[in-house]
Amino acid sequence: MLEEQFLEYVKKMTAYNEAIGVMFWDLRTGAPKKGVEQRSEVIGMLSSEAFQMSTSEEMAAFLAQLNTGEAGQHISDITKKMLSECQKEYDRNKKIPADEYKEYIILASKSESAWEEAKAKSDFALFQPYLEKIVEYKKRFVEYWGYKGNKYNTLLDMYEPGVTVEVIDRVFGQLRDRIVPLVQQIAASTNKPATSFLYRHFPKEQQRKFSLAILKELGYDFEAGRLDETVHPFATGLNPGDVRITTRYDENDFRTAIFGTIHECGHALYEQNISKELIGTNLCDGTSMGIHESQSLFFEKFIGKNYSFWKRNYGILKQYTPGQFDDVALDDFYRAVNESKPSLIRIEADELTYPLHIMVRYEIEKGLINGEIEVKDLPQIWNDKYEEYLGIRPENDAKGVLQDVHWSGGDFGYFPSYALGYMYAAQFKHAILKDLPDFDQLIEDGKVDEIRQWLTYHIHQYGKTKQPLEILQDVTGEGLNAGYLIDYLEEKYRRIYQLV
Amino acid sequence: MLEEQFLEYVKKMTAYNEAIGVMFWDLRTGAPKKGVEQRSEVIGMLSSEAFQMSTSEEMAAFLAQLNTGEAGQHISDITKKMLSECQKEYDRNKKIPADEYKEYIILASKSESAWEEAKAKSDFALFQPYLEKIVEYKKRFVEYWGYKGNKYNTLLDMYEPGVTVEVIDRVFGQLRDRIVPLVQQIAASTNKPATSFLYRHFPKEQQRKFSLAILKELGYDFEAGRLDETVHPFATGLNPGDVRITTRYDENDFRTAIFGTIHECGHALYEQNISKELIGTNLCDGTSMGIHESQSLFFEKFIGKNYSFWKRNYGILKQYTPGQFDDVALDDFYRAVNESKPSLIRIEADELTYPLHIMVRYEIEKGLINGEIEVKDLPQIWNDKYEEYLGIRPENDAKGVLQDVHWSGGDFGYFPSYALGYMYAAQFKHAILKDLPDFDQLIEDGKVDEIRQWLTYHIHQYGKTKQPLEILQDVTGEGLNAGYLIDYLEEKYRRIYQLV
Repeated sequence: MLEEQFLEYVKKMTAYNEAIGVMFWDLRTGAPKKGVEQRSEVIGMLSSEAFQMSTSEEMAAFLAQLNTGEAGQHISDITKKMLSECQKEYDRNKKIPADEYKEYIILASKSESAWEEAKAKSDFALFQPYLEKIVEYKKRFVEYWGYKGNKYNTLLDMYEPGVTVEVIDRVFGQLRDRIVPLVQQIAASTNKPATSFLYRHFPKEQQRKFSLAILKELGYDFEAGRLDETVHPFATGLNPGDVRITTRYDENDFRTAIFGTIHECGHALYEQNISKELIGTNLCDGTSMGIHESQSLFFEKFIGKNYSFWKRNYGILKQYTPGQFDDVALDDFYRAVNESKPSLIRIEADELTYPLHIMVRYEIEKGLINGEIEVKDLPQIWNDKYEEYLGIRPENDAKGVLQDVHWSGGDFGYFPSYALGYMYAAQFKHAILKDLPDFDQLIEDGKVDEIRQWLTYHIHQYGKTKQPLEILQDVTGEGLNAGYLIDYLEEKYRRIYQLV
Repeated sequence: MLEEQFLEYVKKMTAYNEAIGVMFWDLRTGAPKKGVEQRSEVIGMLSSEAFQMSTSEEMAAFLAQLNTGEAGQHISDITKKMLSECQKEYDRNKKIPADEYKEYIILASKSESAWEEAKAKSDFALFQPYLEKIVEYKKRFVEYWGYKGNKYNTLLDMYEPGVTVEVIDRVFGQLRDRIVPLVQQIAASTNKPATSFLYRHFPKEQQRKFSLAILKELGYDFEAGRLDETVHPFATGLNPGDVRITTRYDENDFRTAIFGTIHECGHALYEQNISKELIGTNLCDGTSMGIHESQSLFFEKFIGKNYSFWKRNYGILKQYTPGQFDDVALDDFYRAVNESKPSLIRIEADELTYPLHIMVRYEIEKGLINGEIEVKDLPQIWNDKYEEYLGIRPENDAKGVLQDVHWSGGDFGYFPSYALGYMYAAQFKHAILKDLPDFDQLIEDGKVDEIRQWLTYHIHQYGKTKQPLEILQDVTGEGLNAGYLIDYLEEKYRRIYQLV
């Protein structure tokens, strides 16, 4: 009954994680500030408990006996996959000397504070010594963990198992070759959409009501979730019966809330529809950062920015903000929300230019980890790359190399998932059309749930029981192919900007 | 170093409890229902972890070595008190055979369901077999735990350490002798206040705003708490920096929300003002049910139902519900909210008749545990006692013996705390007058915080570092004395009902 003991053991680990998840959600949605310090202690204590369980002697015994021993002969397939996840985590945590890891955690925490200050003062020099140390640690960790081919592969593998530098270099190369010229053509276009009406006042409470209506239409289950307001929107899956999303309201730009909500809804639909059988296992989660992002981007881009979606919902939107769009035809509205314009800040980028922001970061990360780029040169390299890909140059570090928090906390290997997710989404979209050729019509008829069901059947339900590239292969019949995203962007933006 | 290990160990136990507290609050304030089952599993798992820590061999070793051993020679006073709390819990949990305790927990859970059904159908017979078993278990547990004098003392001690049947019989006897005749006089009075205006429509959102304004005036710290809405109002102290309260709004009776909020505020002020030094120990809580209730009742009755309070706030109340009280003079309003009328349901009782509801329950509990009353006779006994003390007889069991949940879950010994808290509160009020003779004027001037500071200095800050009767003695210079409550009630209600 060693298998049962193992299942019980993992269940306890997931219980800690769920409790931590509830506390994080609570901290971000209105926990009183004087309780935060003690709450952080509590979260720290539970996290450390879960961490210890993942590297304990008990875990080592489970892995040894169930992976190879007699007891492991008749375990279920689910248990095998659970063991494999535990083994990965065990190796990752055990291979780094405990003292070194502790030093690194302290450094990362200080580094985040230094980054905050550096960004506020727009002064990279304040952050540089911290980032140098972070990069040194990461390089050393890669040596401990080991690597195949490129050293950066080991970091990629943490967020997107199976994806390598070789694959990314290929698809990013294709994207670059066709998107950069397109962006340049659009910048020179004389057919730019009018957008000033987007910035008219739209009361927050009305935006909230419209967001709720849209969530309902997209199939978000309010008996298994709720919508709240936060500074930084997120989705959090506590268990498939409780997947919460948050959004942010800008009364002078309704797009923040609406498209943000649709994006988080995509994440949430993934987690609400993971098979109930996986509850209490370590497989009850999205299978990777990239596949997760593919679901949020699928909903944001292929549904929320779709003409059919607004054909259906533009009239409804108008009811929530009387007067704002009286003088705006549907086609002009559609072109406006799909405006593309090179910009400096990643999180504000449109769907066409967004992948270019990711490429800049990917190339820099890869260079840093392989020792081909030095931290001190980052501002220069960053600015040069922005100029090369987007045709604009940051006027300072706050709007350049200091804009993202990721590196300060040591999150290298994470950025590519954003672009991978986008490519997955386009590839899934192409596959859906074979089964649901009237995709746009379904959206126009308010039958998005049929699309959601397709995604659940092919992707959501599996949680982590399938690896990302396994899902991609099973759903689309091929490996990663940037062509679908490129074709989509080319077609859509040539049409919107009336390019020849 | 053993002392430090012990402190760390207890800190971890309190971390579990805080996490559980956050999840309970979340469950009651809007957690999506489909996630509840799994959330209950998570709470169960963390609870069982905390329970195991309280009875572990590690805990046994701490207790043995720090209570009596060499290592315990130089431990701090706080640590000593922490050990004493741990010892109590250890004994309580260890003395019952594990199997028997498990059976009891399962029974209690079934019993609560049976009680719910019995109450809905107003049929005591459905509940009787469960309650009989619960009482049998409780009687056996008392034998395991041991007792001094009356067997019921052991149960009392869990909620109100130090208080015995002897003490309660004495003070309840005094209360009965003087309150029962007063209630009878009032029932026969021809000077009853008009109250119909209380039931006029008062919009929920306006009640909420007024509640927030009152909370602010009472000194509730919104940076260390928040107000939410629930079916059953409560206060929950997660840590002194995060003490949340909830309330319920009845648009046809504003008293539910206002006085409920003030009551919970009293509980919350206690926990917000426990010394920060006690955070992370098992002493960072109210010292007993009774002292906790003394704080909520102090605010509800001695402040919220005080004439000076309404002299200050009646005009403000009127602004929140335009028109409702235009034809009602302050004096009439004051008399109306202080109406006293014998009623069947404890939680709806006014402050004069409330103690009589508690006495009925106390006498029955004491009789059951001592084998002097049988469960099958409860409906008859209950109804007879209501007739004797309150002059009214329940028409059915739902409005009689089945009204409270407590017994179905085995909570015997809890009810007396409600009345003890009330007596403590009156005794504290008398003591305050020596230091703050202008008590009423402070309230009228909106300086309730001076009163709160007095309570913090004498009561709140200590948490569980002082026992309830120790606090009572230190603050009032004497033991429990029902006289103060009786005098207060006599004076107030003779005045309101213009009795000779």
